[in-house]
Amino acid sequence: MTFKEKMLLASKKNKSWLCVGLDPDAQKMPESFPRTPGGVRDFLFSVVDATADKAACFKPNAAFFESMGLEGAKVLEDVIRRIPKEIPVILDAKRADIGNTSAHYAKAAFEILGADAVTINPYMGFDSIEPFIKNPEKAVFILVLTSNKGSADFQQIDAGGEPLYMRVAAKVREWNTADNIGIVAGATKPEDLGRIREVLRKEIFLIPGIGTQGGDLAASCQNCFKHQGTGLFNVSRDILYAGNQDQIREKAESYRRMIEEARG
Amino acid sequence: MTFKEKMLLASKKNKSWLCVGLDPDAQKMPESFPRTPGGVRDFLFSVVDATADKAACFKPNAAFFESMGLEGAKVLEDVIRRIPKEIPVILDAKRADIGNTSAHYAKAAFEILGADAVTINPYMGFDSIEPFIKNPEKAVFILVLTSNKGSADFQQIDAGGEPLYMRVAAKVREWNTADNIGIVAGATKPEDLGRIREVLRKEIFLIPGIGTQGGDLAASCQNCFKHQGTGLFNVSRDILYAGNQDQIREKAESYRRMIEEARG
Repeated sequence: MTFKEKMLLASKKNKSWLCVGLDPDAQKMPESFPRTPGGVRDFLFSVVDATADKAACFKPNAAFFESMGLEGAKVLEDVIRRIPKEIPVILDAKRADIGNTSAHYAKAAFEILGADAVTINPYMGFDSIEPFIKNPEKAVFILVLTSNKGSADFQQIDAGGEPLYMRVAAKVREWNTADNIGIVAGATKPEDLGRIREVLRKEIFLIPGIGTQGGDLAASCQNCFKHQGTGLFNVSRDILYAGNQDQIREKAESYRRMIEEARG
Repeated sequence: MTFKEKMLLASKKNKSWLCVGLDPDAQKMPESFPRTPGGVRDFLFSVVDATADKAACFKPNAAFFESMGLEGAKVLEDVIRRIPKEIPVILDAKRADIGNTSAHYAKAAFEILGADAVTINPYMGFDSIEPFIKNPEKAVFILVLTSNKGSADFQQIDAGGEPLYMRVAAKVREWNTADNIGIVAGATKPEDLGRIREVLRKEIFLIPGIGTQGGDLAASCQNCFKHQGTGLFNVSRDILYAGNQDQIREKAESYRRMIEEARG
């Protein structure tokens, strides 16, 4: 089964386009969990258990596990294993290197960790992405337009009459022959999402920025679900640090419903 | 001591501008080493021991360790610890994410692994890089122009009258107020190195592509060491898979000397 098929099944079953981002910060967890890698693991288990029937996918971010050292690497493995098999996992790692090296990153993400998809930085071009899309069952999400301030430094500069991120979008269309490439596009600029959707009509948009970062959900949804498009709306901190397990579940449910309502 | 000071001391002591890249591939190691993470560790120990007085720095690439799973993460820690304290370590990880997340990657590279510098992908802009350069003793090497074919997809496209990679170089000059930012620039295009050097006159260039990838060393050296510039010439596979420990040492010495001669 491809990533897209698996995601659409999970989305249909849970009536959800919510992606639950797993960015654990030991300092922000409920106080009942010890501030140790084992505590982080138990905390994330409780988050996964509380939100698995509210989510279309989970997205652990590698950085938050790497910063815990060897034990963090083990926690990441354990957390991915805790996620129910029918819910796809996007490893947010923003990797890419020359081809031979990217093949090792792909092996780490897909074979070692068992992720279904991984986020990719496009700067090094096609041969840095190719090893990640060779297996049609696995998918990548290529950074097109990110939601941070620094996206103005390069992504938004003029590159031959259109912003660089539109050049990246055009390449994604060219490369996505196996329908296993999606993109990351920030919700902080809903009109830009619409512009990208005109070029990428069927691709899955992974959209950060509707929680803590504060994007315009209704406009983003409208632009995202045009044509044959679908989208995964990521919320991380706002769900993770909502309080106890019940409050985490309620927060996930409230985002799930908000996105459904915004879709209309 | 800053990265630059440490690197210049090591370079002076060993009369070397050679960066030994540690990209372990279990299938290519001498047959005396078992094809296991432990075997890879022992192989890399032997490489480090054989080349430490020929090198200005070492550059382990994270991908080759991540693809060995949890045991690989441990091997990376062990190998970095094996490198003599006076030789700087560049973790080749090509990381970057939004600020809060990049801070976790910086912690992983500098505090957990003890690297002196890390390679960075510029696509997400300044706030994705800032957490890595906050500590003036630690350095980053930002991808400007890479040596792979895919560098044509975005790095070399026109962005306001000059190629995108020159826009990245211009930003590096603006950002490098603490003199702890270097760049990655492929030796496959020596004339492009010269063009970048006119903009970045004091920055350290980390230059892949003189070994297996086949760049023009003399022209690269000439362009790299202009003005106040210095460069680190990386060789990975060509040294690692030269044969037994003596042959590895001889290959490193031959590259060290070639670079010295090319500098004139």
